[in-house]
Amino acid sequence: MTDAIFNHNHLEDFSLAIFRKIGCPEDHAKLATEVLLKADLRGIDSHGIARLSGYVRLWDKKRVNSSPSIKIVHESPSTAVVDGDSGLGLVVAPRAMEIAISKAQIAGTGWVAVKNSNHFGIAGYHAMMALPHDMIGMAMTNASPLVAPTFSIERLLGTNPIAVAIPALTQPPFVADFATTTAANGKLEILQRKNQRAPLGWIQTKDGLPSTDPNEGRNGGALIPLGSDREHGSHKGFCLGSWVDIFSAVLSGANYGPWVPPFVAFLDPPSDPVGEGIGHFLGAMRIDAFRPADEFKRHMDNWISRFRSAKTVEGEERLIIPGDPERELNEERMRDGIPLNKKVVEDLQALGARFNINF
Amino acid sequence: MTDAIFNHNHLEDFSLAIFRKIGCPEDHAKLATEVLLKADLRGIDSHGIARLSGYVRLWDKKRVNSSPSIKIVHESPSTAVVDGDSGLGLVVAPRAMEIAISKAQIAGTGWVAVKNSNHFGIAGYHAMMALPHDMIGMAMTNASPLVAPTFSIERLLGTNPIAVAIPALTQPPFVADFATTTAANGKLEILQRKNQRAPLGWIQTKDGLPSTDPNEGRNGGALIPLGSDREHGSHKGFCLGSWVDIFSAVLSGANYGPWVPPFVAFLDPPSDPVGEGIGHFLGAMRIDAFRPADEFKRHMDNWISRFRSAKTVEGEERLIIPGDPERELNEERMRDGIPLNKKVVEDLQALGARFNINF
Repeated sequence: MTDAIFNHNHLEDFSLAIFRKIGCPEDHAKLATEVLLKADLRGIDSHGIARLSGYVRLWDKKRVNSSPSIKIVHESPSTAVVDGDSGLGLVVAPRAMEIAISKAQIAGTGWVAVKNSNHFGIAGYHAMMALPHDMIGMAMTNASPLVAPTFSIERLLGTNPIAVAIPALTQPPFVADFATTTAANGKLEILQRKNQRAPLGWIQTKDGLPSTDPNEGRNGGALIPLGSDREHGSHKGFCLGSWVDIFSAVLSGANYGPWVPPFVAFLDPPSDPVGEGIGHFLGAMRIDAFRPADEFKRHMDNWISRFRSAKTVEGEERLIIPGDPERELNEERMRDGIPLNKKVVEDLQALGARFNINF
Repeated sequence: MTDAIFNHNHLEDFSLAIFRKIGCPEDHAKLATEVLLKADLRGIDSHGIARLSGYVRLWDKKRVNSSPSIKIVHESPSTAVVDGDSGLGLVVAPRAMEIAISKAQIAGTGWVAVKNSNHFGIAGYHAMMALPHDMIGMAMTNASPLVAPTFSIERLLGTNPIAVAIPALTQPPFVADFATTTAANGKLEILQRKNQRAPLGWIQTKDGLPSTDPNEGRNGGALIPLGSDREHGSHKGFCLGSWVDIFSAVLSGANYGPWVPPFVAFLDPPSDPVGEGIGHFLGAMRIDAFRPADEFKRHMDNWISRFRSAKTVEGEERLIIPGDPERELNEERMRDGIPLNKKVVEDLQALGARFNINF
């Protein structure tokens, strides 16, 4: 099953047209498209245009409001809670990050908890918004419960990613963006499509036993927190996922833990919600609220060069600085195009047909 | 080798006397003792009184200033950088956390990066200082380079722990406190003492090969970031450890990465420092800067009860909420005493003999 290659402009035009069709105001449609495409460009294919029809299905079910009124409902000099009005997380999260950045400009740091939102694409996009302002950016979100905490057979947490973006001077920025599970759900989706087995430590059966079947989730199985098992620190991965859940949702008033509404529209949200929508947590720290930005960035250059030049194990060429692979892929895909799986292409063609837009 | 049991008051008196003898002012000696003993009480034995003679050896080498003048050297409404004046981290970190809490009282959140400090004991102590103020507390620190990032054979990071403390209403607080490696160094020290092997995934040889020898560090081997190997997400553990290093030291102006001075006094600090001492990063977020504290804490009760009552895998009684085991051990050890390894007892007896204090 060879992937077809698409120019990013083509995919952008298509995504923009679809967001317009479901009623997004022009600025929202553009922003949602930019966030969505950034995932494809950076190689996090599971969070890119492959999800477009998923968002539309949530809109069909009236779970996504395409024209939300995004509002601050509570604030202090360095904090805010934002109500996303059931909007696309692709729009709500960058707006909330703008608020965090404005707060940081005055108070030194800005921290925004978001409720009543939806899936926000890649965490890295939002964290990286801080970089041009000489700020450190952070972004996290909770998500549909797919993960069983250590010793549990119930799925109580999402893959709850964390992103941290840190500027440097001449080096490219440090950008970490990772699910707090052993493997992101997107990696399992790839194995499912290719009909391959998963390594032990990624997934467990409905009874909590080790499994290599990437489809285990359909039979009540679960993803595993970073660490794989208790002996290798899965309780630490559970701590990380919990932290993301609590900051994103208990602080903001969104649904948390097993109450988080599923991303897939064919599953109904729990009938006993504990909050509104899903939650995010976004942060910005102005570097010069700590030390002069140039001084900091020169030391980041030194940090990055030292780590990048580390002696490696035989067979590995270099130590990978967080953000390196995604940035390199971004350049490559801007130039050579974005590969899309055949099933994704068919799905987008069907979506286009429905709205009279050529894919 | 049976452990001897000591009443916590006895150990406190001894620790207090030693800190006085090396010239700590009375309030510093008390604070350092409280932080140190909290590790023993919570069962993180590697960070407790077992380290007392290590701190004294650093003072012998003039690397610890027992009477530091701890100062804010840079600040904004929600941030500060603190110069620890080479003081004990056991004193510098709680003082910095007090500043974070004061900032949070006014600005909503407070974030303090610390330079020119030393080992700060357990991260959890400092994070938990926020709890009585209805705040969320965070604490992280960098540490002696013992950890090889994914694909590296060089030791470039410390075990760089993160602690997050979150208050609840009737439930005990959520307190996560963990090294960003597969296993904390203290766990390897226990295996070394017992002459036992380590699980694969905890440690690597000097050439980056898997090993089960807990003494591998003495031969140029290294600890491994949380995740154990690339396939199981060790690059994510590397992201976490890097994040802690950069927030603690590049933001503050401390030494970072391989330049962090070793805790053991018999190794000299690098001759080409990139900053001052080691670094910490402390944070406090006022709950009601986001939503009313009681409302938040009621939801935390719900979060904790739901997770605590999760169905478990066969053979495991319950899901462990972060902080549960340490809190239970704290109660037990306050009541029944603190077990100390024979080597630790001998070390403390020798320390007492030197200063004319009975252990």
